[in-house]
Order: sequence, then structure tokens, then C-alpha cells
Amino acid sequence: MKEKPKAGTPSYTLEELARLLECKVEGDGATVITGAAGLENAGKGDIVFLAGPKFRGALEASRASAAIIPEGESFPSLPVLKAANPHLTFVRAVELLFVPYRPEPGIHPTASVSPTAKIGPGVSVGAFTVVGDGAEVGEGAVLFPLVSVYPRVKIGAGSIIHSHVSIREDVRIGERVILHCGVVIGADGFGFLPNPDGTHHKIPQKGTVIIEDDVEVGANSTIDRAALGETIVRKGTKIDDLVMVAHNVDVGENTLLAAQTGIAGSSRVGKNVIMAGQVGIADHLEIGDRVIIAAKSGVTKSIPAGSFVAGVPHLDILDWRKFWVTAPLLYDLVKDFKKLRARVEELEKKLGEKDPAGKGKL
Amino acid sequence: MKEKPKAGTPSYTLEELARLLECKVEGDGATVITGAAGLENAGKGDIVFLAGPKFRGALEASRASAAIIPEGESFPSLPVLKAANPHLTFVRAVELLFVPYRPEPGIHPTASVSPTAKIGPGVSVGAFTVVGDGAEVGEGAVLFPLVSVYPRVKIGAGSIIHSHVSIREDVRIGERVILHCGVVIGADGFGFLPNPDGTHHKIPQKGTVIIEDDVEVGANSTIDRAALGETIVRKGTKIDDLVMVAHNVDVGENTLLAAQTGIAGSSRVGKNVIMAGQVGIADHLEIGDRVIIAAKSGVTKSIPAGSFVAGVPHLDILDWRKFWVTAPLLYDLVKDFKKLRARVEELEKKLGEKDPAGKGKL
Amino acid sequence: MKEKPKAGTPSYTLEELARLLECKVEGDGATVITGAAGLENAGKGDIVFLAGPKFRGALEASRASAAIIPEGESFPSLPVLKAANPHLTFVRAVELLFVPYRPEPGIHPTASVSPTAKIGPGVSVGAFTVVGDGAEVGEGAVLFPLVSVYPRVKIGAGSIIHSHVSIREDVRIGERVILHCGVVIGADGFGFLPNPDGTHHKIPQKGTVIIEDDVEVGANSTIDRAALGETIVRKGTKIDDLVMVAHNVDVGENTLLAAQTGIAGSSRVGKNVIMAGQVGIADHLEIGDRVIIAAKSGVTKSIPAGSFVAGVPHLDILDWRKFWVTAPLLYDLVKDFKKLRARVEELEKKLGEKDPAGKGKL
Repeated sequence: MKEKPKAGTPSYTLEELARLLECKVEGDGATVITGAAGLENAGKGDIVFLAGPKFRGALEASRASAAIIPEGESFPSLPVLKAANPHLTFVRAVELLFVPYRPEPGIHPTASVSPTAKIGPGVSVGAFTVVGDGAEVGEGAVLFPLVSVYPRVKIGAGSIIHSHVSIREDVRIGERVILHCGVVIGADGFGFLPNPDGTHHKIPQKGTVIIEDDVEVGANSTIDRAALGETIVRKGTKIDDLVMVAHNVDVGENTLLAAQTGIAGSSRVGKNVIMAGQVGIADHLEIGDRVIIAAKSGVTKSIPAGSFVAGVPHLDILDWRKFWVTAPLLYDLVKDFKKLRARVEELEKKLGEKDPAGKGKL
Repeated sequence: MKEKPKAGTPSYTLEELARLLECKVEGDGATVITGAAGLENAGKGDIVFLAGPKFRGALEASRASAAIIPEGESFPSLPVLKAANPHLTFVRAVELLFVPYRPEPGIHPTASVSPTAKIGPGVSVGAFTVVGDGAEVGEGAVLFPLVSVYPRVKIGAGSIIHSHVSIREDVRIGERVILHCGVVIGADGFGFLPNPDGTHHKIPQKGTVIIEDDVEVGANSTIDRAALGETIVRKGTKIDDLVMVAHNVDVGENTLLAAQTGIAGSSRVGKNVIMAGQVGIADHLEIGDRVIIAAKSGVTKSIPAGSFVAGVPHLDILDWRKFWVTAPLLYDLVKDFKKLRARVEELEKKLGEKDPAGKGKL
Repeated sequence: MKEKPKAGTPSYTLEELARLLECKVEGDGATVITGAAGLENAGKGDIVFLAGPKFRGALEASRASAAIIPEGESFPSLPVLKAANPHLTFVRAVELLFVPYRPEPGIHPTASVSPTAKIGPGVSVGAFTVVGDGAEVGEGAVLFPLVSVYPRVKIGAGSIIHSHVSIREDVRIGERVILHCGVVIGADGFGFLPNPDGTHHKIPQKGTVIIEDDVEVGANSTIDRAALGETIVRKGTKIDDLVMVAHNVDVGENTLLAAQTGIAGSSRVGKNVIMAGQVGIADHLEIGDRVIIAAKSGVTKSIPAGSFVAGVPHLDILDWRKFWVTAPLLYDLVKDFKKLRARVEELEKKLGEKDPAGKGKL
């Protein structure tokens, strides 16, 4: 999207929005739009979108000033924009109408920036943020207050680093990366060798982490540095809150990791994979491209591309569903089995079956 | 409880405690009580409580100076307080005897407080704590060192915000709220639209979070802001460590969420719900009032009020128990089934059953 | 290991390494070693190790300058060190070749150290780190920037406390402890008493936490203070990221807790226990020494020493494996059972079985 939102608290006529969003307008193009909302909460000045025909009644009842609807439909009682993908067009409208909070460029007087750090133009460094020796922060990046950037870290242009993020030494962060509050990138991986006396010998974690462009990492997630080499999160991957990515893991492009998921050491995850929440991946596995893993699954073996799995240990989703259709029947099955066996015994007796060796009996 | 603990390191005679706690004393009311402890660790000066008759032996063996016992009972060898609810009365005694650490009121000289922020009387703002433009902090609230309060946040009177908490812009925190170290309130929700090329388009998270009065949130938990509208945690709800509450979730009053639980986007949780540890709730569900969810459950459908569920996918607790009574029998059941089938085949042969079409056969 | 690595970016001849690591060298002892790597990524100057015979081909193809191999083997095409435990010797070589980043000793001018705190010789206190009243930091300890040390905390000699760690009042940290970024030690435990009106009465958490010597705690993990008494993590135990240890838990020596594991209140864990990732332990349990708990298990009962368990609820590992071998067969079993029952009915009819009372029927 090339258009830039207006500064301050923006407002647009519907006609202006139509032009910026490349849509057709139907109804009063002079309608002033000052906000965007869900159908239920919308008020005067808000634009909403119609997610599907079943929401037409809710749209009728809504107090919104305008709506974005699918191209093939019409909605005479409200001025509308018509879009091939109403949700995406709505999201772009929100981007025009909603200017997220960003601190001013400049280095806060209380920040502790090493004289050997390189700070690009237009960078914002917040209060009490620490930037270590030899670190580099690219053009227009934002370091909110209370960020800890260890020495020799590289942060690409346009990245946004929220409060209480820690980025350990030598980690490389790409461009337009968003790290939410409390994220830790590059803590030591969990690696020990057993000593004969039962104590553990720490394996030095001398590797690093590479976070590629356009990655987003949710609050309090942790991505550990490699023992040797690099832990990598590739371009466009989005990670939710409280996720754990262990040392030497390689997460492919455009993958989604929902909250509280954990990936153990050295596993490789493909592109466009989706892990729902609280998934666990064992170490040294290969998860193929476009794999979908249901929430709470525990993956114990590598998974070929395009699979959809669920459960602990994971099963193909169809097998998992068959299992859980069956599970509630099993308690009665055990009882019914005993009854049936008694009937078979009865039949055997009736037939004068005497089997002195017990052959064929349970 | 209206009584206030004495300042410093408080001590009380048993008689004083009896008056403050509205109990009867039996035995030497002049006994000096300086602390409270568990039965096993109690020493001279400590008061303990009797949780039930089976602990009478342990109380006999204890070195405590006094005990709180149920109203109907007696314990001649020790001075006692008699209470309808000995545990609750003990907790109130602990509150009198134990003054938790609180920093002095006042703004630490190193704190970075915006000139446009409103700081109420008696507030404590710790070293290197940042309070953004237009933020408001109510009377007597405590911000420990190294807290990040983004612009326009409201924090109610008497709330306690520990070190390394991040509160994002526009979030509203009620009165007497406790946020433990590392909590993140108002990070962006995890919302993306798929682009045709497999990349993800971020949905702006323009909503906020409301934390109502008397809520407590455990260390490093994260409560994300809404996409539109508000994520809400209602009055009196208590949240443990490392819990994740996603965007647009609504958690009812007096609910308990134990550690590492996660609630996905837009789900609504009722009042007085209990989720044990590591529970996962899928998105857009309704969890009724007083529902109990066993630890590690994965909830995939809405749950009516008053239910008790367990498992992944969740089952009614009785069905879950029946299933897990049955599970260890199934390995043998499969073998036994094969044997029984062989016996039936044998019977069929004996009866001269020739069934050329295989009708009725497996 | 008594040997100290050289300062700066160290390099060694193979002969020097052999002497320091107490190994025999075979081949050119003058080979200069400047780094250590995995077989695939090694370049000139790197030393690698041979994990087993199946990697001999990869070693042949590697560009490493030297290798550490088992004592019984030989590898003529490369200079080698021969070691009883090549992996351990390699790790010790890495320790010599890789000097992890440590800030200089001294108190950063921006740090806020209470005048009543005792700071030992050689301690490093980073920018904006807060050390509260009466706290003690032992010789050579490192507090990175932005650490929050509450009053009366004790930190032992040689411990390393990374950015954004919070250590609550009165907590005791042993010697050579490593706390990674974002760790919270001593937050209030999750303890409440129910009031008759459905609200919750907070149980004061007046206990503390003891972290013994040589413990390591991963990023963003939380270890809560005891209600009364102490939460203890004993000597040499290693804890991964995002782990939750609740109030009054006692974790024995040399135990390993992998990522996202949670241990509920008052449970006692033995020595040399291994919990894989995302394990949950219910409250008030006893986990014996050397117990192994598979990833994602939910432990609902105490476990005797030496056991290996898996599942939710946990089963002995053999039972768990038998169950999951059986699970995929159950859907068909239910169908097959119905067919077999029909065959038995057919037989009963054939035998003229008329059972008017339904006796023996299902």
C-alpha cells in the first residue's frame, strides 16, 4: 500500500477512501469517516465491513456511517465501498484511520548509547534504553524505553523494539521487524553434557540468532542463540506471545506460531507452516512446508509437507478425529466385550465343546 | 478487614490478636506472637493453624507458641484462638504480622515522568520508571523501579506495578490491581490476513485492554490489546504466571487462571471459572460461569455454566475418568478380541455354517 | 577445568590444546586452531569432533583443520586429538577458544545502587540496574544493564544476572548462578482463600526463594516465593526458558527442567530428574530421584524414584507406548465388535437359543 495516512487524528470522506483503497463507492461519497469498528460497536463516523451474507441483519442494525461490502452485493440503506476482499480493504482502511503510537525520533537524554554504536537517521531511542558497543540501528527504527541491546547487535531499518526487550550480543535483526514487550532474543540455548557424578557441564552457546525481515515476535517470547552457528527465523514469519524457539532451530518463511508453542533444539520448520497454540515440537525434526499442527499437539516425528496433524503423539488429523469419535465408546465396549465373550462361552458349552487343552480360549 | 497492622516488625499478644480477629482465646492471652508459620517450621513466637483433625499430632509436635483451631474443638496443651474458618483467620493474622515490602511514596529522582502525566498523592515511582504523556496514576499506587508506562495509560488508586512491567498506550488498569514482575498488558494481538503470495498482512490492533479492580496478574503473563474494542479482565479475577490472554477476550469476575494457561482470541469466560494450569481455550468460545477446567485440558467447544471438564479435546470430567480407567485395558482388549473372533469362527464351522457370500463376516 | 582461556580472540596450536585438554595429538601439532564448529559449517582454523563412526564421511568432507576423535580410532587425513569423551573434550576446547561477552567490572555511573547495599570486589553493575537497600552482591558477579534487585537480596560470587531480571526482596541466589534475560525470582505465589461471596482473599506470600549454587535459569522463567518458608531450587539444577516453579516447590540437585514446564505449589522434585518440555506437575506431589518425564506429560500422582512416565494423566512409559500402539486400531475395533456380535446372535438363533429373560444378552 503506497498511500500514507494523514497526520493527527485522520478523517476522510468516503470518496477519498474509495480513491485510496481503489474501490467503487455506492451512496453518499461525502460521508465523513473518522473511525473503524466491528458491527456491534460501531457508531457515527465509523466504517465497518460485511464479512458474509449472514451478517446483513447485523449491518442493518449497526449505527455505522458506511460499510465495505463484496463487489457482487449491494446495500441500499448505507453508503458503501465495494471490494473484492472486504476484510483486507477494511484492514487497509483501519491503517489509514488509525495512527499507532510511535515516539518521536531522537535519542532520549537518559538513554545509554555506546559511543561506538551506529545510530541511523530518524531512529528513536527511548528513556533508559541501553545500546551496547558496536551495535547498529538502521534508519527509522524505534527502540522504546527500557530496551537492552547488547554489544554488536544489528537492528535493521524500520524495526520496532518495545520496552523490556533484551537482544543479546551479536544477534542480527532484519528490517521492519516488530519485537513486542519482554521478548528475549539470543539467550543461551539449553545445552549440557552429563558428568559422571550427575552434575551437568554447560555447553558454551557461542552461536547467535538471525531474525529476518518482516518478522513479528509476541510479548515475552524467547528465541535462543545457537550452540554453534545460528538459530534462524526467516522472512515474514509471525510469532505470538510466550513462544519458545530453542537453539539451532530454523523456522521457514511466512510461518505462524501461535501462543505458548515451543520448538526444541535443531528442528527445522518449513515455509507457511501453521502451529496453533501450545504446540510442542521435539528436537531434531523436519516439519515440511504448509504443515498445519492443531493446538496442543506434541510432535514426535518429522512431518511431510502439506500434512495436517493433531494429538500427543501427533496423528494425521483424520486418524485423530476417528480416535476421538471412538474414545467415548470404549468404556462400554470393554463391558460389552465381556458380555459377548460370556455368550460365546455359553454357545461353546451348548455345542458340547470340551477343549481340555484350553486351545482357542482366552 | 479494617484493622491495620502495626508498623515496623509487628508483635501482638494473643489477646490483642483475638480482639483484632474477633476470636475467642483459650489459654494464656499474654503469649507474645511475632510470626506465623506452617506446623513443621514453626518456632517460638509463631502462631499456626489446625487445618483438620488429622493434623492434631503435628500440632502437638510443633514448637509454635499458639494455634488457631476450629470453634468446636479444644487443644489444652497450647494457647489457642477459636475461629469458624481457621485458615482464613490465620491468613488475617499473617496480614497483621507480616508487612510486605513497599517502597516509600515519592518520585525517584531518576524516574522519567512526562510533564503531562498526572501523578496522584502518595504515589511511589521507582528508579528508571517511565511514565508517558498523558498517563494517570491514582492515589497511593506503587510503580516499582524499571516499569514502562506508555502514553495515556490510566492506573487506579492503590495498584502495585512491579519491576519490568510494560503497559502499552491507552490501557486502563483499575484500583488495587497487582501486576507482578514482567507482565505485559496491551501488546498487539496476533492478527493477520493471508496475502495471495503466502505473506501475512498485519491487522492493526487499534483496541485496548481494561483490567478492572482487584485483579492480580502473575509474573511474565501477557494480556493482548483488542484488534477493535477491548480485551477485558473483570473485577477480582486472579491470573497466575506465564498466562496468555489474547485479543478481544473477555474474562469474567473472580475467575482463576492458573499458570501457563492460554485463551485464544475473542473467547468469553464467565464468572468464578477455574482453569487449572496449562489449559488452552480455542478462539471464539463461550465458557459459562463456575466452569472448572482440569489442568492441561484443551477446550475446543463452548462449555455451559457449572460444567467440569478435562482432556484434549475436553470431555465431561466423568467421561474423561471413564476413558482413562479404560485406556490401560485396550491393548489386551484388541488381543482378546482377535481370540474371541477365532472362537466364533470355530463355532461357525462346527455349526456347518458355510456362508459363501461372506455375509455377516468381518 | 583449571586452565583459563587466553584473553582477546584466542588461538592455540593443536599441541597447546592437547596439553590443556590432556589429550594425545596425532598429526601436525603445529596446526593453528582459532575456532570450533559443527562438521558442516567448519572452515579453516576450526576444530570439530567426531560424534560416532557414522560421521566419518562428513568429517572427510569437512573443511576443518583438526578433529577430536575417540581414543580407539584414527583418522590419517587430518591432525587429531584423541579423547575418551570427544564431545566433552570438544566442549572444553570451545571454552578455551570462545570468550563469552562479559561487561567490565565496575559500577556504571547510571546504576542506582543503595548506599546500604554491599557490592563485592570485581562486580559489574550495568547501566540503569537497581540494587535495593541491604542487598549483597558477591565477588565477581555480573549484573547486566536494567536488572532490578529488590532490597535484602543476596547474590553469590560469580553469578551472572542478565538484563530485565527481577529478583524480589529477601531472595537468596547462590554462587555461579546464571539467570537469563527476563527471569523473575520471588514473585508472589498464587494463593487465595474463597470468600462466601465468590471473591478471593489473597494469602500473603511472606516466604522467599533460595536458588543454590550452579543453578541456571532460562529466559523469562518464573520461580515464585513461598507462602510461608521457602521455594528451593537446589545445587546444579538447570532450568530452560518459560518454566514456572510455583510457591513452596522444592527442586532437587542436578535436575533438568526443559522449556515451558510448570510445577504446581508445594511439590517436591528429586535429584537428577529430567522433565522434557511442556510438562505439568500437579501440586503437593513427590517426584523421586532420577525420574524421567516425557514432553507434554501431565503428572497427577507422586512418582517413585527411577520411573519413566508419559501422558496426561501420566502412565508408565511402557503402558503409554502400548496404549498409543493400540489407539489407531480402536475405530475399526468398534465396528468389528458390532459385526462379531451380529455373528454371535446368528449363531444363537441357529442353536435355537430363545432366552426370554434376556439373560446373557447385552
